[in-house]
Amino acid sequence: MEFELITRYFTRSTRRPDVIQGIGDDCALLRVPAGMELAVTMDTLVSGVHFPMDTKPYAIGWKTLAVSLSDLAAIGAEPAWATLALTLPEANEVWLDAFSRGLFDLAKQYNVALVGGDTTRGSLAITLQAHGFVPPGQSLRRAGAQAGDLIYVTGTLGDATVGLDLRQGRRYGPMALTDRKYLLNRLDQPQPQVAAGIALRGIASAAVDISDGLGADLGHILEASGGVGALIGLEYLPRSSALKKLTVPWEKIMAGGDDYELCFTVPPAREKLLEQALIAVGCDFSLIGWIQPSPGIVGIDAESQLVKIGATGYRHFP
Amino acid sequence: MEFELITRYFTRSTRRPDVIQGIGDDCALLRVPAGMELAVTMDTLVSGVHFPMDTKPYAIGWKTLAVSLSDLAAIGAEPAWATLALTLPEANEVWLDAFSRGLFDLAKQYNVALVGGDTTRGSLAITLQAHGFVPPGQSLRRAGAQAGDLIYVTGTLGDATVGLDLRQGRRYGPMALTDRKYLLNRLDQPQPQVAAGIALRGIASAAVDISDGLGADLGHILEASGGVGALIGLEYLPRSSALKKLTVPWEKIMAGGDDYELCFTVPPAREKLLEQALIAVGCDFSLIGWIQPSPGIVGIDAESQLVKIGATGYRHFP
Repeated sequence: MEFELITRYFTRSTRRPDVIQGIGDDCALLRVPAGMELAVTMDTLVSGVHFPMDTKPYAIGWKTLAVSLSDLAAIGAEPAWATLALTLPEANEVWLDAFSRGLFDLAKQYNVALVGGDTTRGSLAITLQAHGFVPPGQSLRRAGAQAGDLIYVTGTLGDATVGLDLRQGRRYGPMALTDRKYLLNRLDQPQPQVAAGIALRGIASAAVDISDGLGADLGHILEASGGVGALIGLEYLPRSSALKKLTVPWEKIMAGGDDYELCFTVPPAREKLLEQALIAVGCDFSLIGWIQPSPGIVGIDAESQLVKIGATGYRHFP
Repeated sequence: MEFELITRYFTRSTRRPDVIQGIGDDCALLRVPAGMELAVTMDTLVSGVHFPMDTKPYAIGWKTLAVSLSDLAAIGAEPAWATLALTLPEANEVWLDAFSRGLFDLAKQYNVALVGGDTTRGSLAITLQAHGFVPPGQSLRRAGAQAGDLIYVTGTLGDATVGLDLRQGRRYGPMALTDRKYLLNRLDQPQPQVAAGIALRGIASAAVDISDGLGADLGHILEASGGVGALIGLEYLPRSSALKKLTVPWEKIMAGGDDYELCFTVPPAREKLLEQALIAVGCDFSLIGWIQPSPGIVGIDAESQLVKIGATGYRHFP
């Protein structure tokens, strides 16, 4: 199984000169560029937990890689290679064809080579490890935010969590077909913020990707940075034009998962540098708040009322 | 979930100076030694497929790492780091404690640091990626065997497949308790042939680890080496003293999985070098046959009869 399947569907990968030996031996052999640090991140997607059971295999393939590239983006790494462990109830060729197309369509965008993996029989579960490079000492970390730093996010938030509602049949009232498609696409085919992560090297004091909801993931920065806090302007949470037409409370945006945008902090002295760097790569970004010395996340709502916000992001285990 | 569990059970890892950032951020940050190639291998173990349902969690933890270290051994790499994706039906602390002890007991032997991973809810499935180093151009490959090369295996074969029979209640007649324990231990806690793999650099013309049975894995060498064949002395297949006391046909030894020994080929001119190299690391090895120009595996049995052997190793998918 391992051999036939992997060979047929997973060898149409990008070629890279730093891959000495790819799929087909006991190990892949790889060359990290001289002087670069190697960043690795591994994520598992389980059917019914990380994506609805009826998600199209193309979207599952795309998202499998997107989730890990988003982790590379969060530390400012340049993507290079992926390995894939695929557990399937049966060797369904239609499924494999669509899944591998989704994965390779995203891989091509970032010149990522699939260099190895394993295929086994069992309940559908997919583990992918992404590998990337970052110059020594330039990686972005969760730790490093200081009181007074500005808090930013890339793109817009909440689209994917509303997309998930739509997929599950929840109604938001009348909606243009293009808006519906946009929101579902944000759920199914997130774009990892790779260029933004690289541009933030040497500028951001801390960074994280938003996979479990802004509240939870910003919470990781605050905790890793020695228990600082955050003041968030709830009216500043960036919403797409599709989302603005709906009634979506800020609680849902803070708690909703699957945004795959970056949340990062920047010392005020580097604000101009930041603007130049992200405009240069064509990345939208929004100032949403400030780091505070006292712990916890506090929001300011439309009526200028202060509200306490828990780290209530999406958790896979109760 | 991801955070609490990983922190509690999986941070008692070996410390290595080449791990810049381990578990706890979006990515691990690693430093490959200057001039070394990076070898990576990923394997998934599914309950009921790769180990019997009633396997003790300590053994599952051990074997999860052993299987991947065996792949590193097969190419002559020195182990360094591991990442672990654990999918569990529930967060069972007794299970996690035993599983992580099994994994770390083997990891300590080879100075392997666990640097990252993911924990998710679902049917039990475990994916581990092992990472190692090998000097440029010195890795062992499946391709490279030539007609006339000697074929060797390390250790003894067939112990684990008989151990699996014992675990599943099959009777082999009266057996000393020490023999029974030995055979079950060979199934549960295989020792990857890491030192042998490193010693074989520059000596073996081709190598593979025996995970799916000698027939299937030797078949990989033959196929990758341009369709050469092999002549195997069936009486030479090395058997442990425990196995010698039982009636186990060579067919079972050729087809049985889970040996995690190395099978490798050596040009006759390097026979002496080989002996010195493997004796120096204290590794037992046996000459079992020769590479032939014509394809296929042919055996010579005890009556000097030639028998044709298919690549009938263990396959996970039918």
